[in-house]
Amino acid sequence: MVEPLFLGAIEAGGTKFLCAVSDRDGATLTQTRIPTTTPAETLSAATAFFAEAAERYGALAAFSIGSFGPLSLNPVANDYGCITSTPKQGWQNVDLLTHFRRTIAAPTALDTDVNCAAVGERLFGSGQGLDTFCYVTVGTGIGVGVLINGAPHGGANHPEAGHIKLPRAAGDDEFAGICPYHGDCLEGLASGPAMHARWGVPAETLPSSHPAWDIEADYLAGLCATLTYTVRPDRIIIGGGVMQPPMYDRVRRMLTEKLAGYDASMRAIDMADYVAAPTAGSSAGLTGALALAYRKATRQWPMHWAVAETTSIDAETANA
Amino acid sequence: MVEPLFLGAIEAGGTKFLCAVSDRDGATLTQTRIPTTTPAETLSAATAFFAEAAERYGALAAFSIGSFGPLSLNPVANDYGCITSTPKQGWQNVDLLTHFRRTIAAPTALDTDVNCAAVGERLFGSGQGLDTFCYVTVGTGIGVGVLINGAPHGGANHPEAGHIKLPRAAGDDEFAGICPYHGDCLEGLASGPAMHARWGVPAETLPSSHPAWDIEADYLAGLCATLTYTVRPDRIIIGGGVMQPPMYDRVRRMLTEKLAGYDASMRAIDMADYVAAPTAGSSAGLTGALALAYRKATRQWPMHWAVAETTSIDAETANA
Repeated sequence: MVEPLFLGAIEAGGTKFLCAVSDRDGATLTQTRIPTTTPAETLSAATAFFAEAAERYGALAAFSIGSFGPLSLNPVANDYGCITSTPKQGWQNVDLLTHFRRTIAAPTALDTDVNCAAVGERLFGSGQGLDTFCYVTVGTGIGVGVLINGAPHGGANHPEAGHIKLPRAAGDDEFAGICPYHGDCLEGLASGPAMHARWGVPAETLPSSHPAWDIEADYLAGLCATLTYTVRPDRIIIGGGVMQPPMYDRVRRMLTEKLAGYDASMRAIDMADYVAAPTAGSSAGLTGALALAYRKATRQWPMHWAVAETTSIDAETANA
Repeated sequence: MVEPLFLGAIEAGGTKFLCAVSDRDGATLTQTRIPTTTPAETLSAATAFFAEAAERYGALAAFSIGSFGPLSLNPVANDYGCITSTPKQGWQNVDLLTHFRRTIAAPTALDTDVNCAAVGERLFGSGQGLDTFCYVTVGTGIGVGVLINGAPHGGANHPEAGHIKLPRAAGDDEFAGICPYHGDCLEGLASGPAMHARWGVPAETLPSSHPAWDIEADYLAGLCATLTYTVRPDRIIIGGGVMQPPMYDRVRRMLTEKLAGYDASMRAIDMADYVAAPTAGSSAGLTGALALAYRKATRQWPMHWAVAETTSIDAETANA
């Protein structure tokens, strides 16, 4: 008989912490959704959830945190495991890793929310069968997860490709950008809040004929071109609230223009395949975080997990 | 007694092909320098060199090509092993790999010139002890090699980060750029020939007080910022004829400004360490290509090679 193995994971976001405990097959045993308020309140509630789960099921074999950032992921840095210079009020320099290491006695993995979502997409979504791809989410910020040779890319720290600078799109010379650090970096020009600031209304209320969307597509195609020339991914998966369905073809068309036929290997690719929507659902990040915990416990990725058994918690359906 | 093991390698450049045969310790047995003229002429001369070497020393255990590009590095592509859309006259769609596979009976490795130079820097230069770093050369083009977890990064194909687009530097609005594909991409604005076209004289003749150098440093700092946010390297090694010594501090200062204090992990780094000059010498590319051949033959990197024994061929010292 196979020993039971319990995995815990958190997807820590700016509006909610999703927490789950699964078995070795990724099947959810218990889960909860905690609003992101103050660090003290939110972290205590998460700790209480895992303490209760441990009483019910037994100790976790491994635990994992997929978090918003920037996170310090360098194990030798003083601030390893901390959320560092986030604009999220009250969450600067919060030491996530130490908090959970003190309260959960299990080996702990740590990565960004977008890298976890990329892992989720590789297991059950648009990243299946791919070794090297990017996962981009365009919402309250612009986050980019990068999988290289099947594993989340860390390097000296995690990629922050939302903060690259691109040339201004035609007709977008006035708006100063809203990134508190860089002003008109990509996130400062093209995130949801940037669109809101530029046009005075939420992005999702702008009709698809509004010039906002061509400007937005230009910036996202610029991001795709930069990722193509630096990371050389097999695919770029783009999701998030700002990526309404009509945007995909605009981004693909503008990306083709920007690549301009350079490099035969890019000419041969099918843009509809190269720039794709995520398909693993809103629980991809939490599933990916559970997969990281599985890898922490077993040193392997869970290639046997079945999508139907994994958590389907999300903002709409989950209750504490 | 250890069996003898002979390795062959070419560093294929736009002006010269450097060819060498070494033993298992990386010590050069014979080497030559062939001018890059027509593919027929240059490739025949290289073939003849390796045929003669094989007669003298015996068959090669492995062979490796480090070439200018863009190269097709995707083993399943029709054009695998070809130089594709190069601006180098007469060299478009030249099938390097097939040529040498027909004439050299040895397992063959293939990578870009800059990835090979990065491998050379890791063995004997500024990349020693680092797992993930970038190697940038700024000369007739802007080439970027990327090592990730100790191995050259390929992905869907090799990085072409010289072709990213960046915002125009202050005071550089007029010049259209010279990239035949992208116009004012980084290479189109900041390569040696781009500087020559913009200022009317070769870059190396411009005094260090000329405004050209601030513009150049702005673009190279922009490249470093983009590489930082996408690849997350431990170091960025920059060399090439355009990178005169006074440029390093300018690039470092402008990079610090561009990063703007975002991300605590970047605030802590020492810029003098992060943006560094190459130190493995002009033979780094050929040494790296020999190391690729070693890995092809043994499945391991040659961590025991001593710098003094490896080839020191270069443009100045080598004779055919």
